[in-house]
Amino acid sequence: MSQNLYFSKEHEQVRAAVRDFVNKRINPFIDEWEEKGAAPLHALFKEMGELGFLGIRYDEKYGGEGLDYWYETVMLEEIARARCGGVPMAIAVQTNMATPAIAEFGSEYQKQTYLRPAIRGEMVGAIAVTEPDAGSDVAAIKTFAKRDGDSYVLNGSKTYITNGTQADFLTLLARTSDAPGYHSFSLFVVPTDLPGFKISKKLDKLGMRSSDTAEIYFDDLRIPAENLIGREGEGFIYQMKQFQHERFSALPICYIGAEEMINETVTYIKGRLVFGKPLITKQVLRHRLVDWLSEIECLRQLTYHIVRLKMAGRDATREISMGKLMGGRVLNQVADGCLQMHGGMGFMNEMRVSRFFRDARLISIGAGASEVMSDIIAKLEGF
Amino acid sequence: MSQNLYFSKEHEQVRAAVRDFVNKRINPFIDEWEEKGAAPLHALFKEMGELGFLGIRYDEKYGGEGLDYWYETVMLEEIARARCGGVPMAIAVQTNMATPAIAEFGSEYQKQTYLRPAIRGEMVGAIAVTEPDAGSDVAAIKTFAKRDGDSYVLNGSKTYITNGTQADFLTLLARTSDAPGYHSFSLFVVPTDLPGFKISKKLDKLGMRSSDTAEIYFDDLRIPAENLIGREGEGFIYQMKQFQHERFSALPICYIGAEEMINETVTYIKGRLVFGKPLITKQVLRHRLVDWLSEIECLRQLTYHIVRLKMAGRDATREISMGKLMGGRVLNQVADGCLQMHGGMGFMNEMRVSRFFRDARLISIGAGASEVMSDIIAKLEGF
Amino acid sequence: MSQNLYFSKEHEQVRAAVRDFVNKRINPFIDEWEEKGAAPLHALFKEMGELGFLGIRYDEKYGGEGLDYWYETVMLEEIARARCGGVPMAIAVQTNMATPAIAEFGSEYQKQTYLRPAIRGEMVGAIAVTEPDAGSDVAAIKTFAKRDGDSYVLNGSKTYITNGTQADFLTLLARTSDAPGYHSFSLFVVPTDLPGFKISKKLDKLGMRSSDTAEIYFDDLRIPAENLIGREGEGFIYQMKQFQHERFSALPICYIGAEEMINETVTYIKGRLVFGKPLITKQVLRHRLVDWLSEIECLRQLTYHIVRLKMAGRDATREISMGKLMGGRVLNQVADGCLQMHGGMGFMNEMRVSRFFRDARLISIGAGASEVMSDIIAKLEGF
Amino acid sequence: MSQNLYFSKEHEQVRAAVRDFVNKRINPFIDEWEEKGAAPLHALFKEMGELGFLGIRYDEKYGGEGLDYWYETVMLEEIARARCGGVPMAIAVQTNMATPAIAEFGSEYQKQTYLRPAIRGEMVGAIAVTEPDAGSDVAAIKTFAKRDGDSYVLNGSKTYITNGTQADFLTLLARTSDAPGYHSFSLFVVPTDLPGFKISKKLDKLGMRSSDTAEIYFDDLRIPAENLIGREGEGFIYQMKQFQHERFSALPICYIGAEEMINETVTYIKGRLVFGKPLITKQVLRHRLVDWLSEIECLRQLTYHIVRLKMAGRDATREISMGKLMGGRVLNQVADGCLQMHGGMGFMNEMRVSRFFRDARLISIGAGASEVMSDIIAKLEGF
Repeated sequence: MSQNLYFSKEHEQVRAAVRDFVNKRINPFIDEWEEKGAAPLHALFKEMGELGFLGIRYDEKYGGEGLDYWYETVMLEEIARARCGGVPMAIAVQTNMATPAIAEFGSEYQKQTYLRPAIRGEMVGAIAVTEPDAGSDVAAIKTFAKRDGDSYVLNGSKTYITNGTQADFLTLLARTSDAPGYHSFSLFVVPTDLPGFKISKKLDKLGMRSSDTAEIYFDDLRIPAENLIGREGEGFIYQMKQFQHERFSALPICYIGAEEMINETVTYIKGRLVFGKPLITKQVLRHRLVDWLSEIECLRQLTYHIVRLKMAGRDATREISMGKLMGGRVLNQVADGCLQMHGGMGFMNEMRVSRFFRDARLISIGAGASEVMSDIIAKLEGF
Repeated sequence: MSQNLYFSKEHEQVRAAVRDFVNKRINPFIDEWEEKGAAPLHALFKEMGELGFLGIRYDEKYGGEGLDYWYETVMLEEIARARCGGVPMAIAVQTNMATPAIAEFGSEYQKQTYLRPAIRGEMVGAIAVTEPDAGSDVAAIKTFAKRDGDSYVLNGSKTYITNGTQADFLTLLARTSDAPGYHSFSLFVVPTDLPGFKISKKLDKLGMRSSDTAEIYFDDLRIPAENLIGREGEGFIYQMKQFQHERFSALPICYIGAEEMINETVTYIKGRLVFGKPLITKQVLRHRLVDWLSEIECLRQLTYHIVRLKMAGRDATREISMGKLMGGRVLNQVADGCLQMHGGMGFMNEMRVSRFFRDARLISIGAGASEVMSDIIAKLEGF
Repeated sequence: MSQNLYFSKEHEQVRAAVRDFVNKRINPFIDEWEEKGAAPLHALFKEMGELGFLGIRYDEKYGGEGLDYWYETVMLEEIARARCGGVPMAIAVQTNMATPAIAEFGSEYQKQTYLRPAIRGEMVGAIAVTEPDAGSDVAAIKTFAKRDGDSYVLNGSKTYITNGTQADFLTLLARTSDAPGYHSFSLFVVPTDLPGFKISKKLDKLGMRSSDTAEIYFDDLRIPAENLIGREGEGFIYQMKQFQHERFSALPICYIGAEEMINETVTYIKGRLVFGKPLITKQVLRHRLVDWLSEIECLRQLTYHIVRLKMAGRDATREISMGKLMGGRVLNQVADGCLQMHGGMGFMNEMRVSRFFRDARLISIGAGASEVMSDIIAKLEGF
Repeated sequence: MSQNLYFSKEHEQVRAAVRDFVNKRINPFIDEWEEKGAAPLHALFKEMGELGFLGIRYDEKYGGEGLDYWYETVMLEEIARARCGGVPMAIAVQTNMATPAIAEFGSEYQKQTYLRPAIRGEMVGAIAVTEPDAGSDVAAIKTFAKRDGDSYVLNGSKTYITNGTQADFLTLLARTSDAPGYHSFSLFVVPTDLPGFKISKKLDKLGMRSSDTAEIYFDDLRIPAENLIGREGEGFIYQMKQFQHERFSALPICYIGAEEMINETVTYIKGRLVFGKPLITKQVLRHRLVDWLSEIECLRQLTYHIVRLKMAGRDATREISMGKLMGGRVLNQVADGCLQMHGGMGFMNEMRVSRFFRDARLISIGAGASEVMSDIIAKLEGF
């Protein structure tokens, strides 16, 4: 078992609170939410907001806890223990994908109007970057926000929008200029109750089924100019920064998720007799487990290194990208391998490992595919 | 593309007929059957039986085609092109899992009563070996058939029974003695309309959803003694032989299934533009595709080698086990990798690759897990 | 153990003869040759030529045996059993790298003057394609043969020339035109006793130490025009074809070499006691051995498929490239893994596995690196 | 490039001093030492001792620097930059393998007589645990030290003794009882100038050639009883602890060695043009480099975590074993992959990558093979 060196009693109190919440208010309902294809985010976030879980590292001025990245990590680690991938993802959208840019680059108005209620769990946020023809290639997005007086007129479509059917606002990246290059994009907060906001369809996914995903489009939707985050033309840069918060949130999900699954699998194969002996006695399985645990420990220590880099104000794009790359790999390997260790039972939907196998598959694709991570790192290394 | 050297015009005629059937009578209905959790096997097999597809290599005396293993391979290759894994599996149960032992070791009565209608598609067969507490460890089975006058009284349970909710008969392995060793088991044909046959539940699976799978139990079910296949106490040996037919049928499913998925993925990434160029131009993806195709070609040639071994009357347990081991590996690798190449779309249930990913996962588990294959081969090699 | 289906009594006679030769005339001297950095090729080839081993598939008109590709495969398989990689490579240069183009495209004069003595083992051949600045990128070669009356004046340098310090002639690819494209190259037979032939240095290599490798250069070497193979401007195409013979010869070296090493390792770990039990009982090692043997069997069957393709007059570039790619991979994996199974002893130069580890490393680099194989296959697949 | 967060100006001064020493007093002589099969350790260690490099974390009372594990890590990281594996290994034997038990469990006499001169570089130490019939299975050792009056009479043999031909003393594990279990072993300091100390042979190794390795035996060698380290019967336990220092020293060697090799390879492939473009532009190579760098960063962070665990007085056997397992894997992967990126040049002995490939191979074998690490971790995890 990983040895704790870095978390104090205060951290552990937060950990216990989040863990308790996951056990009591999330886990018992997961089967139902998976079946329905969505968790009731307004109700869930309201509870979490009241407990302070949605604004761990945000300014107390806007209802946040004003804590640091270690606390955020504690929160993410415990959320990751939920017995599915969908709910942690929905929460991470709220805390690490849709709000960081508002907190960092937004106006006082935006913070009061969107960040504060997001922290209190009174509004559900979503992040709208990906488009049907622009996956990991963010610069290919076509959705256009054309300035017209005091507003921007938005047209286009976005896809794979997590929380998309329930969101109260989108943090959205759109073109504001046809010029080539990275300064033709802007980031907006887009309330979903404005005319012209349309949900094309709710997407039917392989996994992450307790999280709803939508394809949406905008038909002359008028965004008030005051909803432009920061400066026009800087949206791409803001979003690249926001991506670091998003990708970072995947790391605890990977090492904790993998660890949880291993624990469950070890219990299973300790109880399973094959040729008269517990399956756990098989050297081939033991060594596989050890490989995974070793990679998990490495990933965990890389993550804590990233936390320290962030605390020191360093840019951690290189390390976060590495973590995302390795994390996706180990998570999928563990999911696949744990399923195998369950034998025929692993193929049954009643087993957590089967859901885990489906849910885990998204990690190497979403928030920038593994191949994109590799390209980013290669560039940063000067290759 | 793999070069054809071994198939004559006659083989290609059979191929064309099966392919045509798959395209017209299977593929259009798969979505519906996946949704329902079963294909209508009585209707489907009736059609296939009339076309001679279910008795390719069986004696004409019992309605078979009297053809050889090359024709069987052609049939399996084409069945494997169905756009799901469940239906090919259901068919392979009928042709390669539930009937080979009857054909090889069964009595004239058994052949007339079960093999003939199975070949004609008038009866649906299933194979009942695995038990809840005995997965790949076949010798651990507990279901007991106790001789009592002219019948055997059967008690116990079996699980993961493909075709189990629709089967007219089971080819079943049960203990007939408490003595240790491999001579305490016997193989029976068990009609499912006898009193004492109970379906505990239909299993809800990760994939292979167009194929129904059941857990069943037997409550003092009286099997007529004439339904004992071959000699009492020889069932384990018969079943080990029957397994070779079962495992062999997985090989074409692996290399054809993987090849089909690659073709579909290549088409997709040729059309997908990223950073202004088709995704197929990425060297990383190209080399992955090449790796898979190379492994597929190897597996195909191993399969044809096995066909020649079988034609020559040789035991091919070593080679079939190797094929099963390698086949499961390459199929899962391709499924995982093709999904990745689809990006976010790969995670959507509407895409074939997503179903393929779920279905493929069973191959390394069912019919003897990969680890069991490795143990078998190690033993045969004298390690 | 792999089952023999394809070799007749006649094949087995050739096999026995070559095996006997390897055991008596090669293996006892390998340590000495490794130490010296070269085998005495003139003496060795003379003996082999007398036994007919150097012209297996060449026309009897030129002293060959007039046999087919199956016999060539038998010869290569047995040569591959030599207890080093260097000598098999030296022989394969003579039979599969330096002479195929002469046999296929050469003039009667060239066949009588070079092919016949090469088959008889009276001349040692080498192949000169690679240049210091053009490795796998053959089209980048700069060595130029400028037509001048009845001869070509050759200038430039070539490197990694196996047999280079002993060769009597080189089969050499040079530019004969500055025009871009593949029709600016010609293939020549270059006797090494002509003025202007210089050996820059004998290369000091990681492995394959019983084979000498040279860097050479040409200083106004005048090649008689009658030594142009085939037509001027076609040399690149001829060499691409000749490469298929070269690469094919690597396949038996891979699967036989790997198999030999596994046999030796199994014997070693059967005798090695760890924690009171033979090391071979460790499941982790057993499964590794099984993986390798499975890949070896696949590669062998792919090789035999290639033999059949060649017998049928088909182009087998795709399959040979796949075989080279997979073969290099499995050989290196086995070399590395067998060394590991030897523990500390594996790191000792006295052990064959240590030499094997060094020798094997060249296979994925020489005759077109693995990455080049992947690029070739991708192109052939139309990606 | 990895970001420095944990090293202060003081650390960096030590780093600079060691780096300077490696560049000036080690690297220029490596080719010569590799050729000779040994570095002149008495001369080399004298210089290092004077600079304080051999006693970084040892008590000032015995001439050490009294610094902490972070400084030790700095020293190991810089030693690892030597352009070979042999010299760093020879040094690590002195600092991390042959002396830690003396420092921790030795008597004042032993510290004054052996530790102090070892720190000053006036004595060369070696560690003698492995025996011809007991590799990673330490409990199988047979060398026996029989108490006889004021001394122990030592008989038996030891192998793979790094520094063995030059050592002034051995830290040696021997049986002192025939009873089974872990309390039958004792640890001794054995001066090599005592009668009965014999060097059987100097071993000829695949790599690490600048480090001498010996097989030795003891023929009624009388060890004074005062040379027993700690208590009789506790040697196995002491050595298990000492192994943690040994294995830890492999970690910086892995991540720094791999990183150095990557830097050198990147430089090489930036300069190498293939098909008109630098080889570094190939996506397949770029992604491989990124994979390795990501694994290296993970391993480095795991190492720093271990440093913190040690500073906190925690047992880090689990983490060190994981680091050794992962380190050996990544180092060998990088060695193999960098050699491949050099193409034919990688196979030439003149290239550092070729030596690196040979040297790196030992890491997964020495100081407990990877499989032993896996077994240790599995046990610690309670599997």
